[in-house]
Amino acid sequence: MARYDFASDNVAGAMPEVIEALTRFNGGAVAGYGDDAVCARAADAIRGLLDADAEVRFAASGTAANALVLAALAQPHEAVIAHEHSHVATDETGAPGFFGAGLGIIGLPGASGRIDPGTLAAALARPDEPHWQSAAALSLTNATEFGAVYGEDDLAGLITAAKASSLKIHLDGARLANAVAFGFDPKATARLGVDVLVLGGTKAGSTPTEAIVLFDKTLAKRFGARLKHGGQLISKARFLAAPWIGMLESGAWSTRAAHANAMARRLADHMPFTVTHPVEANAVFVDMDEAAYGRLRQAGWSVYRFIDGSVRFMCSWATSEAIVDELIETLKAIA
Amino acid sequence: MARYDFASDNVAGAMPEVIEALTRFNGGAVAGYGDDAVCARAADAIRGLLDADAEVRFAASGTAANALVLAALAQPHEAVIAHEHSHVATDETGAPGFFGAGLGIIGLPGASGRIDPGTLAAALARPDEPHWQSAAALSLTNATEFGAVYGEDDLAGLITAAKASSLKIHLDGARLANAVAFGFDPKATARLGVDVLVLGGTKAGSTPTEAIVLFDKTLAKRFGARLKHGGQLISKARFLAAPWIGMLESGAWSTRAAHANAMARRLADHMPFTVTHPVEANAVFVDMDEAAYGRLRQAGWSVYRFIDGSVRFMCSWATSEAIVDELIETLKAIA
Amino acid sequence: MARYDFASDNVAGAMPEVIEALTRFNGGAVAGYGDDAVCARAADAIRGLLDADAEVRFAASGTAANALVLAALAQPHEAVIAHEHSHVATDETGAPGFFGAGLGIIGLPGASGRIDPGTLAAALARPDEPHWQSAAALSLTNATEFGAVYGEDDLAGLITAAKASSLKIHLDGARLANAVAFGFDPKATARLGVDVLVLGGTKAGSTPTEAIVLFDKTLAKRFGARLKHGGQLISKARFLAAPWIGMLESGAWSTRAAHANAMARRLADHMPFTVTHPVEANAVFVDMDEAAYGRLRQAGWSVYRFIDGSVRFMCSWATSEAIVDELIETLKAIA
Amino acid sequence: MARYDFASDNVAGAMPEVIEALTRFNGGAVAGYGDDAVCARAADAIRGLLDADAEVRFAASGTAANALVLAALAQPHEAVIAHEHSHVATDETGAPGFFGAGLGIIGLPGASGRIDPGTLAAALARPDEPHWQSAAALSLTNATEFGAVYGEDDLAGLITAAKASSLKIHLDGARLANAVAFGFDPKATARLGVDVLVLGGTKAGSTPTEAIVLFDKTLAKRFGARLKHGGQLISKARFLAAPWIGMLESGAWSTRAAHANAMARRLADHMPFTVTHPVEANAVFVDMDEAAYGRLRQAGWSVYRFIDGSVRFMCSWATSEAIVDELIETLKAIA
Repeated sequence: MARYDFASDNVAGAMPEVIEALTRFNGGAVAGYGDDAVCARAADAIRGLLDADAEVRFAASGTAANALVLAALAQPHEAVIAHEHSHVATDETGAPGFFGAGLGIIGLPGASGRIDPGTLAAALARPDEPHWQSAAALSLTNATEFGAVYGEDDLAGLITAAKASSLKIHLDGARLANAVAFGFDPKATARLGVDVLVLGGTKAGSTPTEAIVLFDKTLAKRFGARLKHGGQLISKARFLAAPWIGMLESGAWSTRAAHANAMARRLADHMPFTVTHPVEANAVFVDMDEAAYGRLRQAGWSVYRFIDGSVRFMCSWATSEAIVDELIETLKAIA
Repeated sequence: MARYDFASDNVAGAMPEVIEALTRFNGGAVAGYGDDAVCARAADAIRGLLDADAEVRFAASGTAANALVLAALAQPHEAVIAHEHSHVATDETGAPGFFGAGLGIIGLPGASGRIDPGTLAAALARPDEPHWQSAAALSLTNATEFGAVYGEDDLAGLITAAKASSLKIHLDGARLANAVAFGFDPKATARLGVDVLVLGGTKAGSTPTEAIVLFDKTLAKRFGARLKHGGQLISKARFLAAPWIGMLESGAWSTRAAHANAMARRLADHMPFTVTHPVEANAVFVDMDEAAYGRLRQAGWSVYRFIDGSVRFMCSWATSEAIVDELIETLKAIA
Repeated sequence: MARYDFASDNVAGAMPEVIEALTRFNGGAVAGYGDDAVCARAADAIRGLLDADAEVRFAASGTAANALVLAALAQPHEAVIAHEHSHVATDETGAPGFFGAGLGIIGLPGASGRIDPGTLAAALARPDEPHWQSAAALSLTNATEFGAVYGEDDLAGLITAAKASSLKIHLDGARLANAVAFGFDPKATARLGVDVLVLGGTKAGSTPTEAIVLFDKTLAKRFGARLKHGGQLISKARFLAAPWIGMLESGAWSTRAAHANAMARRLADHMPFTVTHPVEANAVFVDMDEAAYGRLRQAGWSVYRFIDGSVRFMCSWATSEAIVDELIETLKAIA
Repeated sequence: MARYDFASDNVAGAMPEVIEALTRFNGGAVAGYGDDAVCARAADAIRGLLDADAEVRFAASGTAANALVLAALAQPHEAVIAHEHSHVATDETGAPGFFGAGLGIIGLPGASGRIDPGTLAAALARPDEPHWQSAAALSLTNATEFGAVYGEDDLAGLITAAKASSLKIHLDGARLANAVAFGFDPKATARLGVDVLVLGGTKAGSTPTEAIVLFDKTLAKRFGARLKHGGQLISKARFLAAPWIGMLESGAWSTRAAHANAMARRLADHMPFTVTHPVEANAVFVDMDEAAYGRLRQAGWSVYRFIDGSVRFMCSWATSEAIVDELIETLKAIA
């Protein structure tokens, strides 16, 4: 029987603080579609975390939230610049193109999922021609798909360059909790000039919920209609909001991310295979040949070979030291 | 302070059976995106309810589920026939047109949300021309937007006519539980030749979840990709599946719908305003002039004036006799 | 053998001035995609006609030009207000919804294709809610689908009301030549605050070409990319531009429209059936029962029964007095 | 003043046979939208060329024709395999993604625009997962973007492999005339199992027209509606059809392509720069450093640096020996 513990950070259930909040806010009749006190309180908690006067909406899927937001930042005949291995470029089955009516993605290289400033400059310098989709937005991901964390200075450089070319800025924060646990200041998001943040709840340890944070409040106009048109306006919105109250008012959103990061660190420290990316968040990527990979799967562990050829191990809020140690034993045996 | 108790059936929280199931299936690491035992067990429960060997998927939004399914049944240059006041035609902010890349809706009249067979025949007789979107599917809703319930014979007539014109059949079952509680046999769905059913969980009393039931299993090909492309493939799918286990294995899905229906019946029986549609499910529509409507809102009750001008009162699994009686008192006072 | 002479104004070939211009500008190598001197000269001629400093692009289809322009004026989750029987609402097979990624059309009534100001006011007063597509643009048609011509005052009233609600204004000018021939001042278009005009070439007597006139020049940003993305950037653009030089520099665009209008007038003046709409442009609509309509078709004349039940006769630049008289004879015989 | 003679094959006007046909078929009233005798005769001529009983439609733009056809061959959540430098992948401003509602393109490498069979096999072997867009169609281009011509055997290998994976086959024949002039048998198209061919008229020497040839006639169902929905159903369709009668009944479509190919051959034979791709059709690609390229432009010749870094010279039906020789003189001077 396959064991999925390290397959992704979405294989875990929800943290106790989330289940408690779902139960706590379950009673009574409240307005639907986000116009209720639970949503308002969750939005306040998110504004507090980010120290910003932003509009906040909730969605049930990170893929949808990203795609819908990119469609708000770029016209169908325009493109979004993103890392070539980012989630929006490689792991959303074309959702940005669907939500954006054929919106293009310009994939740029860069080590460990961080966009290389030089290639960004070159992409921005490309002349505007009717024969291709010119960039209207820059999409960044922190922590990256490869478990690296952008520092505030790294982001400032990229964002400044993009804004100089009038691009809008999207931050995919599916794993922002892990970046924050590594030291990234969540308050930097607004300071840096991000226009829209998709703040990750699910991978942080919630039942399905992501927060769309509109720092650029002009985007909020008719955003409810945009959400409903895109199939993302949930009627019983309190159930997307309550988890945020549970996670943020308790601090568990970041403390549990710190635990996930520590488990990745523990795994990396005893890893008998070569680690291929910086272990700054909750992921460990290693170089593993097909034979060893086969033995690992034979031993029952279900993990993925990633787009760069590395084998990926993800930790989550629910990962225990014991299971990390058990995996390490197996890895040593198959190495 | 506004009271939302009768504003919709989505103002209620989740029934205890749902919260219990969410908690019960929260533990352990399971595969994401629907490939887990919780989803499999929920799908089995749904197949049992419907007595059909169908493929089952889950989505977080009924609007999205309907729109995505219609896009699978009709090409962008084709149309879907639906009641002119159906949810897909009037209450989804164009989502079917978005998911369907410009898919058209042909709205037909009919009393209390039930499509009139004569107008369907006329619509089906319209010749195929390149200058308009010809019908490729028929969308039906049971219970209807006006709280009426189609009998099996009514549906058989409409479906037979549509299939004779090679249309595919979609059933919007957002309130199928209420139709079942009124006497509609859920096993009739497959028998009637419905191709896809969107089975309602949320309004029945769940946290957000709807089940997409593909009776026509050829539609299941690459349906996971279709869901992800459309922003509807939830990673922690167990949280969309567990509620179904809670509702169906206990029977609460229909017994609690019967309660909701009974509360609507109780309200209708003491209603001092003229009831404008048959009270067969969990809704009561009444004729109320602006002055009385103003007094009702003044008294704190938030309800809607519907598309036909009636004022709508919705009951849910959570509606108590006491609150029905309290509303009746107010209504008598303002009449 | 069917005779199509009165079936539409697109059954005619191209006027001599168009064929001459196509031949005149055929020689030599010129830049593609609109960056050539032929396109520049045609754009100048159009700016001259309209007395406005607008950006001008060309498209091969009026349906496409309208749909693409509406997608530039309204977001996918918004709607365009148009007459319920306008071309964009009834005769484009959902193209606005396709180009606009599910963009909605709000159809308003009004005699002979002219929007009723009262219903416009009511539509504009509808509150902004996430559950439907709120209006972002108003689409007007002059001459209307029913051969009526809006006066400048009529349009001013509608446009002023729409602009007060921040709507953008689209004018479908497929038959603007006929409106101009009736007395509408083409220079009024800019004066009235129209944001985009689709200026009709094809029905006026050209080979396929329509001009997209962007009075709001901010819309011109990346418009070439928008056109190519939408399949409307023609490489040998000179062949869409040359006809405009032929039609406008000679004056034939309006003088030949005056001929078409006169032929409709002649037909109406001798029409033995009741005329159902004002004959202000090149169309005559009549009340004709099925029996007479059958005899007309039996006699070989192919015309359409329109959306309002009237039978439509269209005249064009190519309609001769002789053929009008021949039709009148037939009509008298079958009446 | 820039000289565009070698910038593209779309800088030329229309060949005399096309102008003559436009004039010949200009007279009289005919049915619109393709239901006329001119379209029927043109379709017959195309069926004769291809020796196949296919359905034929006309479009004004090759980009649109390709994009619309790909949308008919693959679902939005699926992808089309194409050469990474093909027109659909690099030069259509995202039109396939727009027409296909987010349809993906999987770009494969291969010398001179020909897809490498090994990489195709690898792409076809990729497992079907919901997290990416799996291939539903293969798009081939003959002659390729780099002026190479696939032989029938080359195509047979690729098509057989694709069909074994149930893919549909699209052939972009924007320059099929040049491939035919090089020796490719147009009758091979049907024999090879191509499902849809976009047969190029514009670059061959016509006013704007492309033919969509549906070998798989099941695709013809409601294709007129698909065209209109996509903004590609031209009312005065005779003007898209007549050029085909002019080009095909005279043989000029291929004989003039042979001339274009011969001009490219002449240019290549005297080219002082290194030729970088096989000169099999009407293009010559060369290795030219920035300094020389600057001198070339300084001398007034406007040509493009292509996606592979080569500088491209295109010949057309209108390219004279004299101008080729004049260019050669310049090239020798700047080398």
